[in-house]
Amino acid sequence: MKISILLFEKMAAQDAVGPYEVFRCVPGWEVELVGKRAGEVRAEGGLGLVADRALEGVTEADAVLVPGGRGSEAMAADAEVLDWLRRIDGQTRWTISVCTGSEILGAAGLLEGRRATSNWLFLDRLPDYGAEPVGGRWVEDGKTLTAAGVTAGIDMALHLVGREAGPEVAQAVQLGIEYDPDPPFDSGSPEKAPAAVVELVRSASRAASAG
Amino acid sequence: MKISILLFEKMAAQDAVGPYEVFRCVPGWEVELVGKRAGEVRAEGGLGLVADRALEGVTEADAVLVPGGRGSEAMAADAEVLDWLRRIDGQTRWTISVCTGSEILGAAGLLEGRRATSNWLFLDRLPDYGAEPVGGRWVEDGKTLTAAGVTAGIDMALHLVGREAGPEVAQAVQLGIEYDPDPPFDSGSPEKAPAAVVELVRSASRAASAG
Repeated sequence: MKISILLFEKMAAQDAVGPYEVFRCVPGWEVELVGKRAGEVRAEGGLGLVADRALEGVTEADAVLVPGGRGSEAMAADAEVLDWLRRIDGQTRWTISVCTGSEILGAAGLLEGRRATSNWLFLDRLPDYGAEPVGGRWVEDGKTLTAAGVTAGIDMALHLVGREAGPEVAQAVQLGIEYDPDPPFDSGSPEKAPAAVVELVRSASRAASAG
Repeated sequence: MKISILLFEKMAAQDAVGPYEVFRCVPGWEVELVGKRAGEVRAEGGLGLVADRALEGVTEADAVLVPGGRGSEAMAADAEVLDWLRRIDGQTRWTISVCTGSEILGAAGLLEGRRATSNWLFLDRLPDYGAEPVGGRWVEDGKTLTAAGVTAGIDMALHLVGREAGPEVAQAVQLGIEYDPDPPFDSGSPEKAPAAVVELVRSASRAASAG
């Protein structure tokens, strides 16, 4: 399977690198990093990632994955990116987003009539794109696979490997990346985090959007 | 807190990017990506990451983090890198590894007499460096913080944020990256994975080491 992952300015690096690390471990799978232009892209926080190919040269992929992050808003307003996504979606087996990457798929019209998920802070925007918001780490509806915020990309990617390469391969990849999560706190969702922490994150998000 | 993350050829990208994504979300924390030379580094699988500064220019940091991956063996034999690690360790508050990054810390003599962990496949090498191997997602011994394989870096990083910035900040970061893990399989450790899967991963690792 050949997977194209879109990189862009102010993306969340983990959204792309989590699934990348899962996919690259699957024998025979090929992952390509693509961008509006080939070359360096700066993720949120400044980390430099390298897009090896410009979108215009990418005309086929078995799967396309769109990460999220602060930069997703600009991508969702970028006609070149949205046109490319619609074209490539025309022949993918899977069209995938992580976190607010759903906003970009939505802006391209690719979530119309679909059940989908997103970062918990942005779930309520999905209806703007004709999608039905659903909770959970990932949502599969037809060939559309959307993951919740940031780290949910790892869970979603293991699910996809299970679907395409079988459970034994997915389990081997999970063991290879020693994904036996045991966070020191239990506040990874707004239902589990203390109310004060939820409000802290909501305020920070509002401040960042305004800023 | 100023954290330097070492990038090198054939590192596992997730080992660095997981903790990066956690640390960059902490108000006032600064993360710098460093390499033997400034410029592109190719992680396992080919992903390009950018080292913004060469080691020789990096003379102080509050914390240094060393990722693992196939390339760790070469780093553990690289005098320039080991000298730098010993120098920077002389004034860090925390010296950290993820996965087989422990091999690099060990080769620099920084695990001597410490309790430490590593990727499950490499735990039994820790005594070669005078360290006592310990299971778990991370092990803190004095200022040395070692994480288990690949994804354990996320758990370790949240622990460090809790220690340095307090539990509320750590919980806010966890919610920000929506780290409420729910993998579709339960095979992230050799104790949990089916025996056939453990053997598959062991064989693949042996083949890669021989290759």
